[in-house]
Amino acid sequence: MNDALRELAHQWLHPGTKGLALRQPLRQDTLGELGLNVLDGLLSYPVAVLRQSTLDHNIAWMRDFVERADALLAPHGKTTMSPQLFQAQLDAGAWAITLATIPQLRVAHRFGVKRVLLANQPVAIADIESLAALLREDADFQAWVLVDSSAGLQRLNHVMQQIAPQRRLPVLVELGADGGRSGVRDLDSALQLAREVHAASHLSLAGIEGYEGLWVSADRDADLQRVQSLLTQMVALTRRCDAEGLFDGDEILISAGGSAYFDFVADAFNSVGDTSRPLRRILRSGCYLTSDHGLYHGLQREMRTRHDASFRHGLQPALEVWAMVQSRPEPGLALLTLGKRDASHDIDLPRPLSWHRPGQPAPRPMRDARIVKMNDQHAYLELPVEHPLQVGDLVGTGISHPCTTFDKWPLMLLTDDSYRVTGAINTFF
Amino acid sequence: MNDALRELAHQWLHPGTKGLALRQPLRQDTLGELGLNVLDGLLSYPVAVLRQSTLDHNIAWMRDFVERADALLAPHGKTTMSPQLFQAQLDAGAWAITLATIPQLRVAHRFGVKRVLLANQPVAIADIESLAALLREDADFQAWVLVDSSAGLQRLNHVMQQIAPQRRLPVLVELGADGGRSGVRDLDSALQLAREVHAASHLSLAGIEGYEGLWVSADRDADLQRVQSLLTQMVALTRRCDAEGLFDGDEILISAGGSAYFDFVADAFNSVGDTSRPLRRILRSGCYLTSDHGLYHGLQREMRTRHDASFRHGLQPALEVWAMVQSRPEPGLALLTLGKRDASHDIDLPRPLSWHRPGQPAPRPMRDARIVKMNDQHAYLELPVEHPLQVGDLVGTGISHPCTTFDKWPLMLLTDDSYRVTGAINTFF
Repeated sequence: MNDALRELAHQWLHPGTKGLALRQPLRQDTLGELGLNVLDGLLSYPVAVLRQSTLDHNIAWMRDFVERADALLAPHGKTTMSPQLFQAQLDAGAWAITLATIPQLRVAHRFGVKRVLLANQPVAIADIESLAALLREDADFQAWVLVDSSAGLQRLNHVMQQIAPQRRLPVLVELGADGGRSGVRDLDSALQLAREVHAASHLSLAGIEGYEGLWVSADRDADLQRVQSLLTQMVALTRRCDAEGLFDGDEILISAGGSAYFDFVADAFNSVGDTSRPLRRILRSGCYLTSDHGLYHGLQREMRTRHDASFRHGLQPALEVWAMVQSRPEPGLALLTLGKRDASHDIDLPRPLSWHRPGQPAPRPMRDARIVKMNDQHAYLELPVEHPLQVGDLVGTGISHPCTTFDKWPLMLLTDDSYRVTGAINTFF
Repeated sequence: MNDALRELAHQWLHPGTKGLALRQPLRQDTLGELGLNVLDGLLSYPVAVLRQSTLDHNIAWMRDFVERADALLAPHGKTTMSPQLFQAQLDAGAWAITLATIPQLRVAHRFGVKRVLLANQPVAIADIESLAALLREDADFQAWVLVDSSAGLQRLNHVMQQIAPQRRLPVLVELGADGGRSGVRDLDSALQLAREVHAASHLSLAGIEGYEGLWVSADRDADLQRVQSLLTQMVALTRRCDAEGLFDGDEILISAGGSAYFDFVADAFNSVGDTSRPLRRILRSGCYLTSDHGLYHGLQREMRTRHDASFRHGLQPALEVWAMVQSRPEPGLALLTLGKRDASHDIDLPRPLSWHRPGQPAPRPMRDARIVKMNDQHAYLELPVEHPLQVGDLVGTGISHPCTTFDKWPLMLLTDDSYRVTGAINTFF
């Protein structure tokens, strides 16, 4: 454990920390010794919990997957923005941590991450200066960034020249597709940009990047076609750049991979064929770590149907948010202490999984009930009028889209399989 | 300034703080001396900014409004969860700060707030214990809470008896309405609950509460009818409780008022008539402080049409989020550094207000452009193909629903009218 992580473990949690009903400051690393259990009803609710055994399972599963795929993992850190989870991912062999913004990259560096992939073209001059300063000051720190325009490239080159002229910033050209997000829209323009990177005085062309994970629509056939089309183009661009001798380093990077299609990505990257120097295939899934009970659960199920038994016990949901029944003002309605500030609501509302009356033996499954609306601090749970749920009962919910739940919790509790609190992780948003 | 606020001012901001491209730690209270200007393009974008003069205007406007209405203001602190803004509201005469949860109440207390209205029935035993412990330990601290069920009442009474038997917890009975959130659904049941509060050994009946702000639908006539109906019921309940001698304190509290209909609330509360002891009319708007460019802007416009010239220069939007153009990959599309992690997306997506090229004299209005989608860290801006917007330009956006933007920024910058950074406020979510 490095100094910054140790400092986190030793920090004082103040009364007002969500999920904990602290009456005085508590040292974070003593949390696991208090004998707390989510099911006892003696926390402050809502509380977000991560099941340690499921995190461990998902980390091991993905490590095995990338090994079999002859790929490397640079898990997207923006999902969790948690230094302790970054460290767990690196300890399990992750090659780097991916980040979306320079402030995120700075957080990762502050907590000891020494190799980062910025899956964006940084454009703000002060952000690029901040990156260049890190590269100048910390010889052990390595960063790769994207470009998708000459304008972006020139900003990078200019700042590197000013601030860190002794290092060349390794750059991946981002390939996109019409209707997509960023990224150069066609192969010829991307090749042209690769030439510009190669020619830039303070940049080096390190590889090719794309992001296929956005295409999740109602039309799954069309989605898969677009994914395959982007991957095919990426492979072609990699070959053409290599054929022209544009890659500058000792190896060539090719990177894609959200959490929806990393199996297709791995397959496509294995079709590049011979290259002038070793090809590093970098997958960047972020949501694999916790998965969820919504969008990614469905995508995982789809992925399993594409594969053999090795996928059967694939990624499992590790994250739950537990709320308390605050009111049952109508026979078919309960209000939960669970709002837009506590759980993702951008893709689906949280899904009730189980309910529990503190003091009783074990949570029971929650059927025929659903959350139909959330306000800032409340959820509206519709349930059968005969359901025994009452004020003070607990409801465990699963979320859809981990990224937008993590960013609502500066502190998340770790539990064992019986919901005993064993510790906590921090997030930095 | 109390010690806790002074400590905040003196805290070190670390590299990785969103909006600031820090390369080393910076003492927060030196931020205003750096000569930063949002329009110079030398921050990290996105950055959330609060215009100080507009905050001051809104605070003064609302102070005048409640004065004219013979009401008191307990602004909802859950909107901002910012100790510095709480203090500004109290300095301008706010009677108390309203909070939604016990962790929020603890944050307010930690930063010196001595009078709070918890606009919810607290149900978690550990939360109630935390509140009772505060009441036991801090004789200067006053808190009012809601009940809407016997079960809730009994939990409160039991914990108060255990932990703070020397104080009676003042309670407001929450009146609701079918299809609404929490709150007792009819007058007779509410009256019965008021009797139970009055009879409880460690509680006192302090008043009547309701929340009318939720009814904002496409059918404005129906909304207004429901609002007026709830207010009428609240007035009737207040009279009946008073007639029965159920109120325990030296005064009677009646409280409602989100940010949509506080004018109706004030009118209704002035119709209660004579009471056995002084009636305190408590409004609880939270969003008045910053207003917005979306939902609350529209509601303010409606409110203005209901009133005379004193409303003409009413609440103004004080909060903007500035993003940078990261990519313009198609002629009609720009990608902004602005995602679901940075701005509200629960009611409307952010609205582009102006654009600016650093180095040029002043921002220009942004017409014919709109944000059509956001990912976690990106916004998709559709704009005319001939628009000169390019990589590195800034786009200022207005948001809809302040609560869900504040919770995305641990630090927000204060600016003057020319976007010079004069300081910062913190939030605690």
